[in-house]
Amino acid sequence: MEFLVDVRVALPAEMEAQQRAALLAAELQRGRELVAAGHISGIWRIPGALRNVAIWQARDATELHELIASLPLFPWIAADVTALATHPLNAD
Amino acid sequence: MEFLVDVRVALPAEMEAQQRAALLAAELQRGRELVAAGHISGIWRIPGALRNVAIWQARDATELHELIASLPLFPWIAADVTALATHPLNAD
Amino acid sequence: MEFLVDVRVALPAEMEAQQRAALLAAELQRGRELVAAGHISGIWRIPGALRNVAIWQARDATELHELIASLPLFPWIAADVTALATHPLNAD
Amino acid sequence: MEFLVDVRVALPAEMEAQQRAALLAAELQRGRELVAAGHISGIWRIPGALRNVAIWQARDATELHELIASLPLFPWIAADVTALATHPLNAD
Amino acid sequence: MEFLVDVRVALPAEMEAQQRAALLAAELQRGRELVAAGHISGIWRIPGALRNVAIWQARDATELHELIASLPLFPWIAADVTALATHPLNAD
Amino acid sequence: MEFLVDVRVALPAEMEAQQRAALLAAELQRGRELVAAGHISGIWRIPGALRNVAIWQARDATELHELIASLPLFPWIAADVTALATHPLNAD
Amino acid sequence: MEFLVDVRVALPAEMEAQQRAALLAAELQRGRELVAAGHISGIWRIPGALRNVAIWQARDATELHELIASLPLFPWIAADVTALATHPLNAD
Amino acid sequence: MEFLVDVRVALPAEMEAQQRAALLAAELQRGRELVAAGHISGIWRIPGALRNVAIWQARDATELHELIASLPLFPWIAADVTALATHPLNAD
Amino acid sequence: MEFLVDVRVALPAEMEAQQRAALLAAELQRGRELVAAGHISGIWRIPGALRNVAIWQARDATELHELIASLPLFPWIAADVTALATHPLNAD
Amino acid sequence: MEFLVDVRVALPAEMEAQQRAALLAAELQRGRELVAAGHISGIWRIPGALRNVAIWQARDATELHELIASLPLFPWIAADVTALATHPLNAD
Repeated sequence: MEFLVDVRVALPAEMEAQQRAALLAAELQRGRELVAAGHISGIWRIPGALRNVAIWQARDATELHELIASLPLFPWIAADVTALATHPLNAD
Repeated sequence: MEFLVDVRVALPAEMEAQQRAALLAAELQRGRELVAAGHISGIWRIPGALRNVAIWQARDATELHELIASLPLFPWIAADVTALATHPLNAD
Repeated sequence: MEFLVDVRVALPAEMEAQQRAALLAAELQRGRELVAAGHISGIWRIPGALRNVAIWQARDATELHELIASLPLFPWIAADVTALATHPLNAD
Repeated sequence: MEFLVDVRVALPAEMEAQQRAALLAAELQRGRELVAAGHISGIWRIPGALRNVAIWQARDATELHELIASLPLFPWIAADVTALATHPLNAD
Repeated sequence: MEFLVDVRVALPAEMEAQQRAALLAAELQRGRELVAAGHISGIWRIPGALRNVAIWQARDATELHELIASLPLFPWIAADVTALATHPLNAD
Repeated sequence: MEFLVDVRVALPAEMEAQQRAALLAAELQRGRELVAAGHISGIWRIPGALRNVAIWQARDATELHELIASLPLFPWIAADVTALATHPLNAD
Repeated sequence: MEFLVDVRVALPAEMEAQQRAALLAAELQRGRELVAAGHISGIWRIPGALRNVAIWQARDATELHELIASLPLFPWIAADVTALATHPLNAD
Repeated sequence: MEFLVDVRVALPAEMEAQQRAALLAAELQRGRELVAAGHISGIWRIPGALRNVAIWQARDATELHELIASLPLFPWIAADVTALATHPLNAD
Repeated sequence: MEFLVDVRVALPAEMEAQQRAALLAAELQRGRELVAAGHISGIWRIPGALRNVAIWQARDATELHELIASLPLFPWIAADVTALATHPLNAD
Repeated sequence: MEFLVDVRVALPAEMEAQQRAALLAAELQRGRELVAAGHISGIWRIPGALRNVAIWQARDATELHELIASLPLFPWIAADVTALATHPLNAD
């Protein structure tokens, strides 16, 4: 099943540059794994902030939660999840 | 998969009593079928309005949409859908 | 450039069934053209309502507006447009 | 009487891992007691966050408040409570 | 049990004066019955609109819904219901 | 004059237990004085949070502000004040 | 006592010009009376809409409601009322 | 003085095509006059709707209101006005 | 030109009493200067919080910003500014 | 392509004056470069806060994000981006 997930990251401005860089690098690495495993099939940045929208693929909402919770930035993330249904234009 | 669906019905106040009664009766009948088929496993009224919250069961969001769209009141309905994941307390 | 467009359709409940069906058929036909022309690269239904989210491709916001305004349902549509930037995971 | 309770937990990201784990374990334990006592009859996780919705059973809102306030995570919780009425589909 | 109910009435401005007056008179009459029966123990007008807040008494949310739905203005009403718990200052 | 006051208390979760208990005890004591003086004629807890709604009596908004500002928890409080008018059902 | 009242007028666009002009003239006339009687001590238009903010003077919220309800445009008005307290800068 | 004005037009979908076209033509004509007179110094369409944002120039809010109210579409318009101050980057 | 300015002050609850008192005294002193200079022609406290609404007079939004930024509490302030136009009732 | 960008800066009130001044000076310097390069074609301050709206020019949303992220205040900024289409009044 597919989900639209809108992820906003709220890293505190005063976080040390090194910790910040390490977290962002780990996040990118975990993201690559999720793309490779087919769990993220499309992802875009919302300009002007640390925020992205992506199309996630998971068996159900339970697996989806585990995938999002596996992100290194999870404690700093606010994620809005929207379940997606097939649209007639895609189902042709 | 389970979904929390919050349904608000906005029938115009000036609708004829007969049409209103017929629609509500048809809605109740369709609701009974959805309960019998296991698609609605729990449903509650939000007091003070024509509004309910229910736990729906569907293969995925595509089937869920078809089920909601099968309601006779669908053209007058605003429905908010939330995908539900298993909670550790239920998975024990 | 890519845009996330969230389209909600508000057809009045009392619209005649024939006009409604004709409008929805014309909308689907125009949608197929936009998909074929590469202007819509992904589209999903939000369950529970006449609402969809889609990834649109256009030279710029001016062309995007013309494409959305070409939809037969445009007078009944509320559309939220979000400009999308490339995400590092896609740019790899 | 039944209530729909939407619980969002806001643990600070910088909380020590040990305190966090202890709190979450105590919360799970208290949750099991509430399920066993029949005060929580259904509970689901909202994917993407530390958030759940549940159906609570209590004599009245006063008892419900005491039950929610007994959660170890109560100081970090924002809870929205909705009183639930019987729906005709359940009352059949 | 007690509930705080916030009632906003949205009568269309173009309703005939006679129908409007009859509805408001019937509403007042039904209100007097609810006060006499102890279902409304306090009621105040929010200035500037057809809106009131009141403390309602009912066995549970199911009875409360029936009481609100018995108002002649119910089809034009939007009601927000908040379940109330005993406060230590009142429980002394 | 009467006012509906909705008070939400936001004590930081990490406040020391002793300071917290002392503040809450002082708040309860000041509340008892306000009840005894007739300034609070009804008060209820909103379940699930440190939040209450109450009917306050004061000469005018200036006195009301002084009364609310006299609460020991005032620096942690967000209060919404609604001026109340007499309702025909009460004025009978 | 003083109140800040924010009044938005929602006349339907299709109202006949004559009825519209008559209503607006009556509203202006009633406004002049309220100014002359000292019930409106300051009034400003919010640019871009049929909307104003004003400082109203009334014994209490009950009288204020009667004054606002006496406006010819009352059935088309949405009014937000804020009770005002004396500010130290004015009380000097 | 400069103002940012966000204008949303809500023409009813069922308006006759001829009336609609006439109104939009008159609006465009009045817009050209406002541009020529220097009252609109920049204007952009928000894609996906009948909506624009523009930089308006007026002596003060009183003149601005008269300019906006002179638009043929004024009865169907919702306009949000933001007063603009000089930014140091422009004042260099 | 006149502006309606809604000022909410968010001093942290844990600020030292001495710093708090000094800031509030300085704010009151600066407020007196602004009143004396004719920049604030009316000011009221919103009861229940550190919040006020006032009518400010300034040449334009640029001067208004400088006046607000001159307040000692400016770093803790959230201010909403509304440009005000002359109302026909005042212009008589 | 053009974008309307609404930037709100949330510097903590307790930041040291020297760091604050250095950041604001660096921000102004970077802003001058963006103006000189034609990336910001108009910018205004929203009075009463550290907030501005500006018209930005960029190839696409990806370049726009890089430009905004190059601001020294980026970690303290919340930016809302709106894609802008050509308006008929500008395209004449």
